[in-house]
Amino acid sequence: MANALRILAVDAVEQAKSGHPGAPMGMADIAQVLWHRHLRHNPADPAWPDRDRFVLSNGHGSMLIYALLHLTGYDLPMSELKAFRQLHSRTAGHPEVGVTPGVETTTGPLGQGIANAVGMALAEKLLALEFNRDGHAIVDHRTWAFLGDGCLMEGISHEACALAGTLKLSRLTAFYDDNGISIDGHVEGWFTDDTPARFRAYGWHVIAGVDGHDPVALDAAVQQAMAQSDQPDGKPTLICCKTVIGKGSPGKAGTHDVHGAALGAAEVAATRAALGWTDAPFEIPADIQTAWNARERGAAQQAQWQQRFDAYRAAHPQLAAELLRRLRGELSADFAAKLPALLEAIAADTAPVATRKASQNALSAIAPLLPEFFGGSADLTGSNLTHFKGCVRAGPGENGQFVWGNHLSYGVREFGMAAIMNGMALHGGYLPYGGTFLTFSDYSRNAIRMAALMKQRVIHVLTHDSIGLGEDGPTHQPIEHVPSLRIIPGVHVWRPADALETAVAWTHAVQRQDGPACLALSRQNLPSWHANARRADEIAKGGYVLADVDAPQAALIATGSEVMLAVEAQKLLAAEGVAVRVVSMPCTNVFDAQDAAWQDSVLPPDLPAVAIEAAHPDFWRKYVGRRGAVVGLPTFGESAPAPQLYAHFGITAQAVVQAVHATLGRYGQGSARA
Amino acid sequence: MANALRILAVDAVEQAKSGHPGAPMGMADIAQVLWHRHLRHNPADPAWPDRDRFVLSNGHGSMLIYALLHLTGYDLPMSELKAFRQLHSRTAGHPEVGVTPGVETTTGPLGQGIANAVGMALAEKLLALEFNRDGHAIVDHRTWAFLGDGCLMEGISHEACALAGTLKLSRLTAFYDDNGISIDGHVEGWFTDDTPARFRAYGWHVIAGVDGHDPVALDAAVQQAMAQSDQPDGKPTLICCKTVIGKGSPGKAGTHDVHGAALGAAEVAATRAALGWTDAPFEIPADIQTAWNARERGAAQQAQWQQRFDAYRAAHPQLAAELLRRLRGELSADFAAKLPALLEAIAADTAPVATRKASQNALSAIAPLLPEFFGGSADLTGSNLTHFKGCVRAGPGENGQFVWGNHLSYGVREFGMAAIMNGMALHGGYLPYGGTFLTFSDYSRNAIRMAALMKQRVIHVLTHDSIGLGEDGPTHQPIEHVPSLRIIPGVHVWRPADALETAVAWTHAVQRQDGPACLALSRQNLPSWHANARRADEIAKGGYVLADVDAPQAALIATGSEVMLAVEAQKLLAAEGVAVRVVSMPCTNVFDAQDAAWQDSVLPPDLPAVAIEAAHPDFWRKYVGRRGAVVGLPTFGESAPAPQLYAHFGITAQAVVQAVHATLGRYGQGSARA
Repeated sequence: MANALRILAVDAVEQAKSGHPGAPMGMADIAQVLWHRHLRHNPADPAWPDRDRFVLSNGHGSMLIYALLHLTGYDLPMSELKAFRQLHSRTAGHPEVGVTPGVETTTGPLGQGIANAVGMALAEKLLALEFNRDGHAIVDHRTWAFLGDGCLMEGISHEACALAGTLKLSRLTAFYDDNGISIDGHVEGWFTDDTPARFRAYGWHVIAGVDGHDPVALDAAVQQAMAQSDQPDGKPTLICCKTVIGKGSPGKAGTHDVHGAALGAAEVAATRAALGWTDAPFEIPADIQTAWNARERGAAQQAQWQQRFDAYRAAHPQLAAELLRRLRGELSADFAAKLPALLEAIAADTAPVATRKASQNALSAIAPLLPEFFGGSADLTGSNLTHFKGCVRAGPGENGQFVWGNHLSYGVREFGMAAIMNGMALHGGYLPYGGTFLTFSDYSRNAIRMAALMKQRVIHVLTHDSIGLGEDGPTHQPIEHVPSLRIIPGVHVWRPADALETAVAWTHAVQRQDGPACLALSRQNLPSWHANARRADEIAKGGYVLADVDAPQAALIATGSEVMLAVEAQKLLAAEGVAVRVVSMPCTNVFDAQDAAWQDSVLPPDLPAVAIEAAHPDFWRKYVGRRGAVVGLPTFGESAPAPQLYAHFGITAQAVVQAVHATLGRYGQGSARA
Repeated sequence: MANALRILAVDAVEQAKSGHPGAPMGMADIAQVLWHRHLRHNPADPAWPDRDRFVLSNGHGSMLIYALLHLTGYDLPMSELKAFRQLHSRTAGHPEVGVTPGVETTTGPLGQGIANAVGMALAEKLLALEFNRDGHAIVDHRTWAFLGDGCLMEGISHEACALAGTLKLSRLTAFYDDNGISIDGHVEGWFTDDTPARFRAYGWHVIAGVDGHDPVALDAAVQQAMAQSDQPDGKPTLICCKTVIGKGSPGKAGTHDVHGAALGAAEVAATRAALGWTDAPFEIPADIQTAWNARERGAAQQAQWQQRFDAYRAAHPQLAAELLRRLRGELSADFAAKLPALLEAIAADTAPVATRKASQNALSAIAPLLPEFFGGSADLTGSNLTHFKGCVRAGPGENGQFVWGNHLSYGVREFGMAAIMNGMALHGGYLPYGGTFLTFSDYSRNAIRMAALMKQRVIHVLTHDSIGLGEDGPTHQPIEHVPSLRIIPGVHVWRPADALETAVAWTHAVQRQDGPACLALSRQNLPSWHANARRADEIAKGGYVLADVDAPQAALIATGSEVMLAVEAQKLLAAEGVAVRVVSMPCTNVFDAQDAAWQDSVLPPDLPAVAIEAAHPDFWRKYVGRRGAVVGLPTFGESAPAPQLYAHFGITAQAVVQAVHATLGRYGQGSARA
């Protein structure tokens, strides 16, 4: 059975002349033991809520999971394996959730898969605590992950696995493919960690020195992991498996040559011979096919769970309905019904407020309608203001045991937090959001990208969004971050200007079903632009005319804290007889998705335009063109009180006025001062 | 003496009403022991090459280092401490190299300081092996780092410290400020690592359980670290110091209230009383001033070293001159002299070549002129092609002892690599470059930013720069990365189109003295556009007319692999009677720094323009405006062979032709097909 995995990997990579046979061949025996004997899943229903989750963190070994899914009976026919890495196939170069049935997360960027698995195990633990009732363990599954040397070298493995130890995620089991090889060769030159000791230091249960090609030893290790996992002192388990990369290839096993390239025809033949495999490429003997097929066992497992779930539903009908709603990712009917009144209440408070505080107010208002919220911060809770009225801290309680909550202190682990949030969203049942300073979105950036690629609804609360943060200085002042995040495909970046825009940003991000949102929020107080919620729908279009004039000669486009400069400039210009419109553009991504009629009504194509944002200016050229102007900041910031910085860098209403004159001049509409 | 540090931190934060008193107060005793008894430095000459390096990785504790620098006699008068965190002061919110004499690296983004320190210790070790001779230990200093819980939670601490263990950087000593507090409160809820065990697993020498307020215990620990460091089995040392955050503040010590806010007048007074400190704010008793002043000791240490260096210079004049040249960061006279011939030789080979391979060829050609090169890759050496003819692998040799070399396999540690490179550049003596896939610049992004903020010359070799990488799919295909990197202030992003442009990119990056460069390089072969090096100077301007026509109706602006589409489109358009110019724009950052005459000669402001780049398109609007067009890719890629992807996403010469017609139409210059 394990050799069937090896041969399929060899054949598919050979056919594509591209791919990574080494890891699938090396981990085939581990995969056989886990998938054939322990993994609870139903190939006929990859969406079964109580299935075990499996994560291939070393995603370059994608042919391993494709072979497993095919052989166990998922909707992944052999024709797809023959089309490995080809356009429109379901067998992409790296496994992609949503493309291949049974793939739980997209992996490839090393280290993130194991962090996703931590998020899945966390979601399982939280959901079980929230929904299981005495005699009704309807959330009762495990998370399994494969990972290699590369994942373990990546920093994110430290962040995620340390936190998993602290949180005692005992139903998480990881198999370390300890083959001693990475792309540059034998790892002794650059990777000499005592990995078992490292993971014990994290509070993991470590089973070291397992022969990764000995099914008996592997099975015993899995049994041991499972036996301790439900003890009061249960811990996550790392099974360290000594393996030979490319095992089965007589000429290349144990070398990095087998990591990431096709074996070549001669070595494929030698491998077939060595394994005693006489069947043609992509042909699997019937008895092996039968042995692998898990549809019957999976259907029985799911049916048994369904019986248990039916009993749960009978005993706790509301809980059951709520659980199913949350697993579907649907918002409650209440949410839509009560939202308008909430927005009205939020808008009614017109006192100046930092948008990070407005964000917390919005959270406090909408969280009661969203029990699926699971918030957190990378050790900046009181600065990001991600906690809300009545939220409950998750994590170790008095006795060290995990206590349910809906807000987590992730520690100073931005990247780990973001990838754990992705895992929670993929698992289902929670809507994760997490905070850090906007500048440190650099640390978590690739996990934000992965959320977008996977179309997962996660929300990043990114506060201290400009030089407006003041004295912490250029290391902490975002310049390029907002424009950089806007161009990650599928990310919605909101930079709201007041409390209502902030609340709309939250509700839009929550209602979105197909990707992540980033909320860029101010440290400093901002005025209110909306005394009521009448224009919430316009805000939700991403960009709208905030303050219009008759026959505008130009448009001022601003976001967040710079909207007030635009409004002030509008007044100064009016005094000079120059009429300009103020456009608030809290989310360019959403604005760009509106129809042309809306876009042109807000920004007529021929209307001269000036953009104002305390960020790198180049982004705005798409709206203001070459003849327009941008009042922004192409350099790093400085350490000083915020008002001095705005003056120092020339991000002022006076600068906007001058930019308008210069722009009108370039359009041939000279004004007195141009 | 320690209380002088505490009081200065308290007073400066109180005056600024902003800053972090907790860490300086908690680490004051450690700082006193290290700086007063062990640190070898000369306040009168912060550039003394053989000084010990000190890194405050927990950079928010900036007042600690400012107090130390002031008291020991650096050019940092009390007036600067009184201007803490104010505009144009030398006491920025977080310590900044180049702003404050004696600050070795800019810290604040947690975890990067310790990684910088690893780079400094690595540079010291390499330089000592390269330049010291029997009886002449002229490179003979240590690296010391302070770090806190936050640094240890960050993933980069894993990457950098694991590698430091493997490389046996025994002259690196880190002091862990184990105060049990991070911003969210007591760390037990999110940080329960057994840190000593973790660092032993990395191969560090760990001195655990030291009382961070006991000078005798601290001194003994430092002695122990120093004693073992020059043994054959020497290792880096972690001294774990139990401390009380904010020690000295009777009402706030030991709580997170003291982490990041002024104490307030009442608590300042209580702290003075508790410490028995009767002097006014910013006044230090003369005896304590005298005790702290290190100018005499430092001058003697440097003079003693200078004697040894003079003896070295007498014995090895060429070596001494070469060392000084490299420490100054100057290129050899040879480099400038031989460069033209090298470029000619490179251009003469007009065979199609991937720019990653052209990069390796350029390296092989110029490395003999640049013995300061120190290359490496995050476990992708054979893909990034960062190794060159005759380069020597650094790292553990046969017996596990460190062996000198000029290329390092950093392991799968992109962020760690980038921050270590920054540390090496800051140390001096080497010109570091390192490779990974362009997509994974996301992982190292903030360290690239920090190189720019610190104006350090490091070079990132970022290969597999577009969907042109093919089958590895969207996780590995950069879309937003090139435009995102371009807008980090001070970064030069080069995306060369052929072998000569690649070589010019390298030489420009090497000759640059004030910041980092990123080279975005293709996996796939590209044609040659230059049979000789005649136009190297134009390439070095960042953008130039590659293929002109009489009376162009439009400009096609392209980079890298898309230049060939522009040239093909030029031909197709010529056949239709439409004359367009082709502009190659390998580095927009450098082009933007040219004078207006050059910019306008390449891209006349009124000439319609179309940009072509297999990346997110928005960036190019700054050159093509609203009426121009961009042939690019606003979505994620797919997994398939590269040529199919270009066709699938419509990045073709035909698409460029259509875009030109549409653009001319918008400019009112309709052509037959517009």
